[in-house]
Amino acid sequence: MNLTTASRSELEAFRQKLLKDFEACKAKGLKLDMSRGKPSKAQLDLCEPMLTAVSRNEEMQAGKTDVRNYGGLEGLAECRKLFAEILEVPEDWVMAGGNASLTMMYDAMLRLWVFGAPEGKPWSQEAKVKWLCPVPGYDRHFAICQQLGMEMIPVPMLEDGPDMALVEKLAGEDPAVKGIWCVPKYSNPEGKTYSDQTVRRFVKMKTAAPDFRIFWDNAYIVHHLTDEHEELLNVFEAAKEYGAEDRVLEFCSTSKISYAGAGVAAMAASPANIAWTKKIMGVQAIGPDKINQLRHVRYFKDRAGIEAHMKKHAALLKPKFDMVLSLLESNLGGTGAGSWHTPKGGYFISFDAMPGCAKRIHALCKEAGVVMTSAGATYPYGDDPKDSNLRIAPSLPPVEELKEAAQVFCTCALLAATEKQLETR
Amino acid sequence: MNLTTASRSELEAFRQKLLKDFEACKAKGLKLDMSRGKPSKAQLDLCEPMLTAVSRNEEMQAGKTDVRNYGGLEGLAECRKLFAEILEVPEDWVMAGGNASLTMMYDAMLRLWVFGAPEGKPWSQEAKVKWLCPVPGYDRHFAICQQLGMEMIPVPMLEDGPDMALVEKLAGEDPAVKGIWCVPKYSNPEGKTYSDQTVRRFVKMKTAAPDFRIFWDNAYIVHHLTDEHEELLNVFEAAKEYGAEDRVLEFCSTSKISYAGAGVAAMAASPANIAWTKKIMGVQAIGPDKINQLRHVRYFKDRAGIEAHMKKHAALLKPKFDMVLSLLESNLGGTGAGSWHTPKGGYFISFDAMPGCAKRIHALCKEAGVVMTSAGATYPYGDDPKDSNLRIAPSLPPVEELKEAAQVFCTCALLAATEKQLETR
Repeated sequence: MNLTTASRSELEAFRQKLLKDFEACKAKGLKLDMSRGKPSKAQLDLCEPMLTAVSRNEEMQAGKTDVRNYGGLEGLAECRKLFAEILEVPEDWVMAGGNASLTMMYDAMLRLWVFGAPEGKPWSQEAKVKWLCPVPGYDRHFAICQQLGMEMIPVPMLEDGPDMALVEKLAGEDPAVKGIWCVPKYSNPEGKTYSDQTVRRFVKMKTAAPDFRIFWDNAYIVHHLTDEHEELLNVFEAAKEYGAEDRVLEFCSTSKISYAGAGVAAMAASPANIAWTKKIMGVQAIGPDKINQLRHVRYFKDRAGIEAHMKKHAALLKPKFDMVLSLLESNLGGTGAGSWHTPKGGYFISFDAMPGCAKRIHALCKEAGVVMTSAGATYPYGDDPKDSNLRIAPSLPPVEELKEAAQVFCTCALLAATEKQLETR
Repeated sequence: MNLTTASRSELEAFRQKLLKDFEACKAKGLKLDMSRGKPSKAQLDLCEPMLTAVSRNEEMQAGKTDVRNYGGLEGLAECRKLFAEILEVPEDWVMAGGNASLTMMYDAMLRLWVFGAPEGKPWSQEAKVKWLCPVPGYDRHFAICQQLGMEMIPVPMLEDGPDMALVEKLAGEDPAVKGIWCVPKYSNPEGKTYSDQTVRRFVKMKTAAPDFRIFWDNAYIVHHLTDEHEELLNVFEAAKEYGAEDRVLEFCSTSKISYAGAGVAAMAASPANIAWTKKIMGVQAIGPDKINQLRHVRYFKDRAGIEAHMKKHAALLKPKFDMVLSLLESNLGGTGAGSWHTPKGGYFISFDAMPGCAKRIHALCKEAGVVMTSAGATYPYGDDPKDSNLRIAPSLPPVEELKEAAQVFCTCALLAATEKQLETR
């Protein structure tokens, strides 16, 4: 039944059925979590041998470096090399850090805020700092801007990346616009990959702010779900042509390769930005955990090793994505209750509910024991003007639990949409 | 020979002898490093079994926490407990973090700078921020203040801690004075421990700034060199009496217990400060490396385990300290070329050269292939007004190398003092 064209009596009857379904869901007493993109236990089990890849005193030397001791602000050379292979940048453009790219991004933003870019003054001294936020996007990105009191400007995501005409206009005209968040490959939450054209426009565009920065969060760079990999243009290669290398700070991590809480994060940046980072960071830190970096290097060895490992992740994740997508299709297809994108990688399924329904769906799911990411979380200030987008994170629950959760979700989405339509009849 | 009373001809003759000694030193082509408090290879070798203390998938659960996954901003409960035992504070006063207390201190300072303490406004918005720096002190502490443009005010170290009369006056009268660095036990570089009286005065004193903060860097809390442990009054216990718990942020780490670059750091603070820290840090991080925290807990188990381990460190360090101290005594005793403190713990020997000689000694040592911490490094802005203090770090070199380095140091100290005296004759 297409809810948008159904009659009032049809909707009323359907609502009664859905309420029964919903009560049945509740009666199961579920306690399921689809809120965050956490790897499952089975995924975390994959790299057990890494834990003992560096386990004896004789194994502690990497070149001239005793990885146990102080030093090496930019990270272990061997680990920088590994990330350089993945990011396709020169090794000395890479800093290998601690366990979280989020922290590297936050710290980079704070350096810009407190000390300023090499070519500008501290952003905290600007009357106003504005930041472009492709939507739907990642709540933890937005939280950084919000904490610093920046004005976030939402930019709609199109099929091949952010609306670049809008980005070019905002960045080109207003010097208060200092930068943008990007998850350019298998984006969070939609799983979209920026087109070559989009990447080129990012480095080609004129910016009113000379110290404009693109935070290029390449979180899902090797996180394919299928053998059909979406390709992302190398942003630094593209930037070279326009001399815009200093505009980009790229981030990635092994959080969803090795361990979510105990991986290694990295930043890639131009020599000018690396020098600037090291100068300021040299007061904050002596060096990252090089033992853990060496563990990663000894276990994964190289890019091929990581790619082989990611196939094991895909084998665990793909059935979960398929199952959720298939339930969405079978329950919601043709109803008008929502639409979704079928991602070829990343960690999420982005669901666009019938406008005005997202908060209601979230509340219904919660009542039935299924925790979703909050409605609105994919928008700056938690404010989704259409109250429509919800992020589904299928990775954590075992398949059977996920199936129950997805069914609950479908019931709630239908119920919310039916209620919404009834308001208009 | 006492250089301060020797005649010009005696000095001249001695100088000739020293120059020959110095040339002999140089001829050895040494390349020795006494610059930083790095543990030696033998020390790093001590906790090899820790590397495999968490090595199988079945070992990844700590209570309800899978230590491999995201989460736990405040650190693993078991690890907080371990630090709580060492710091003698309640477990929920502890945050267990990454691999560096320096980073925890820097980040805490930046939170105060950018966001302000719970009871005040951001320090960056103050017309002027001043900070008290006990001297001689730790260069990395001073670097944080300098990077933020604070005005550092040196406070002389007395035998039982900083000159508290001066601290009380400066903190009590000037609201721009926002805090002080303290290394209260086996201080860096002098190895002095604050008396109970000093600790009490810190928490009892009136401060003109309501958001005054003591950065209590308890870096050497269990780092005894002998069985005769110096005792430090628990600063939070003392603070309780005066309701001054919010004034103190305490830091420590296992950098010189387990691994210098791959240990675990911790902060202890009042519930108000912990809540404030978590609120701001929740945007910067999801959680620390809990696998490494669990490794530490499984290996050391408890405070007794750590104390037993520290005896092994002492057994390696004590002979090095003894050797340097004995060479200082035999070469420099009674000459007036310098004085030093005999520490019962910590990582350094602080050497007060004849005024005006520290830079010259540093340069001479360098010429002879021995790298020392820069002269002046123990003072804010690298400015030791007497050009006197040098920090000797005996931990890293093997004993035989250290002996050579210490002998070079003594020759250089004598040569510099002799030259200095000749200027006055």
